Amino acid sequence: MAGEIAEQPAMLERILRDQPAAIHEVAQVIRKAQPRFVVLAARGTSDHAALYAKYLIEILLGLPVGLASPSTMTQYGSRPDLRDVLMIAVSQSGSSPDLVGSLTTARECGALTLAVTNAPASSLATSAELHIDVQAGPELAVAATKSYTAELLSLYLLVDAWRGGNAAAAGDLAETAAATLADTVPVERLAERLRGVERMVVTGRGYSFPSALETALKLMETSYVAAQAFSGADLMHGPMAMLQESSAVLAFASVGVGGQAMLPVLDRLRELDTSLAVIGEPALAGESGVALPTVDEALSPLLEIIPMQLLAHRLAVARGYDPDQPRGLRKVTQTS
Amino acid sequence: MAGEIAEQPAMLERILRDQPAAIHEVAQVIRKAQPRFVVLAARGTSDHAALYAKYLIEILLGLPVGLASPSTMTQYGSRPDLRDVLMIAVSQSGSSPDLVGSLTTARECGALTLAVTNAPASSLATSAELHIDVQAGPELAVAATKSYTAELLSLYLLVDAWRGGNAAAAGDLAETAAATLADTVPVERLAERLRGVERMVVTGRGYSFPSALETALKLMETSYVAAQAFSGADLMHGPMAMLQESSAVLAFASVGVGGQAMLPVLDRLRELDTSLAVIGEPALAGESGVALPTVDEALSPLLEIIPMQLLAHRLAVARGYDPDQPRGLRKVTQTS
Repeated sequence: MAGEIAEQPAMLERILRDQPAAIHEVAQVIRKAQPRFVVLAARGTSDHAALYAKYLIEILLGLPVGLASPSTMTQYGSRPDLRDVLMIAVSQSGSSPDLVGSLTTARECGALTLAVTNAPASSLATSAELHIDVQAGPELAVAATKSYTAELLSLYLLVDAWRGGNAAAAGDLAETAAATLADTVPVERLAERLRGVERMVVTGRGYSFPSALETALKLMETSYVAAQAFSGADLMHGPMAMLQESSAVLAFASVGVGGQAMLPVLDRLRELDTSLAVIGEPALAGESGVALPTVDEALSPLLEIIPMQLLAHRLAVARGYDPDQPRGLRKVTQTS
Repeated sequence: MAGEIAEQPAMLERILRDQPAAIHEVAQVIRKAQPRFVVLAARGTSDHAALYAKYLIEILLGLPVGLASPSTMTQYGSRPDLRDVLMIAVSQSGSSPDLVGSLTTARECGALTLAVTNAPASSLATSAELHIDVQAGPELAVAATKSYTAELLSLYLLVDAWRGGNAAAAGDLAETAAATLADTVPVERLAERLRGVERMVVTGRGYSFPSALETALKLMETSYVAAQAFSGADLMHGPMAMLQESSAVLAFASVGVGGQAMLPVLDRLRELDTSLAVIGEPALAGESGVALPTVDEALSPLLEIIPMQLLAHRLAVARGYDPDQPRGLRKVTQTS
């Protein structure tokens, strides 16, 4: 897991160099098809990459997006009318039966289908009309890290090409990712502080909401913490009640609209008897949080997850667990 | 809260008697408009009712459905193309600024808009072209209970009328709800067993997934438990790792497709060192769970939440909290 986390800057650089042409071709097919609605299907970590794509597509392309509930097609046998729909299935392994089933049904029901995987020979990749190989390289750790950022960048490049961009904002992403990875002091400090904590809440808004979900999943997988993620808005609708019992809150607040929308949430959190760490804008993160380099807000999820992957790893080690051997998990999960 | 939980059978009976005509009229307008996609917008408890509607619409009507990320319109200023889209906003109070903002923008962007609220004079109700008053009566407890089942039934009646049904399956719902409410022994036993438990996982698939989310929220709001909800499929993709540390799992398994899809999940859960309680089919629930009367699967969420509302209430009292005064919450949450 540590090795795969460390590979990310080089991997991002490689993707930025090698992938834009292939992704541009996929984008051209989609532009021509003029979809009016997008449905995303994924599970686990890839579901958080799918949610990132939902924000990108809604904000940058102005298309309504839904996250599929795979069981409606695979279990309940729904055969929806999917003409004018683009279905994007995201999966590292490309082999979960419910995703293959959903994508196959969607294609039969008239959707244009795109698989985004790290496995070009997988059932999911070969079942779809279009495929993007995220080229993370082999991922062996059960807890997905580099395949997540590879999915994020591939989806960013897709949406950017779809709207006719040239990915200029992503130009120095590999360097900023390397800088983020190199600055381990705030993460080590946070891991020390959270070592005995059993309950955590992770929160963010807009583009950072997927980062909150993915951070919580990493903490659950490697450190067995009861980590719960909420959008900053949903946190105010109920879960806020249990926060005094939770020993720690991790809050994303990047430079941009999502971070601005978190300010009233941060104010409320500071009033409570709970330990708060802010990840993002240096002025908000302060000494006790994790300051991140400033990037285009749409790219911030690529940076903000890196210290959280490190945190999940360090916390597991500090608590005496082996982050490479999470209990009860296999690398490829088969659900139908 | 206890009083409002107890009111539900009489309330469901009243809704079944008084509401079908008004809901039928709304359904006729929607049928005429022939929407091709549905977008649902909600927060908190009402978001779980919206997710229930997503399953109903996808399974029974075969239309693709998305859950709105309100911030994309209210914070990021997205102006999506929503022609042929039905936007349904669900809210007890009808007054959350982000929902009013999302619905207003959706209407300007070409969507047919429907507000489902318990407040016909609210901004949300008056901003929408169509309105369904769920008629739960005044709800005073901060933890929403009867407004949730009123929203579920109203949404069921809407989808049923939309597909030309006559709500026959819901005929004896008030009686089965009364029977469910009367049988408090299994819930009391469960509350006793869970009294000292700080971490719970709640799971279900298909129609029961919203029940899992709503149960977790009730437990968080009233008993300050770290209660996490996962679909049975997502549970296998990562969170399974932390289950030995969780002291209890509540799993919904109703008669029907969703319950069948839970069987392999229940098998995995039984292998783990965790306390499991099944809510649903009597043969699966056994002595340690909560057996429910059998109803049409699409209506099962209306029954299965009732013992969980009772559980949240009893657990709060057993732990020395006041379920009518959750810490740090107000009845109406204003997020933008």
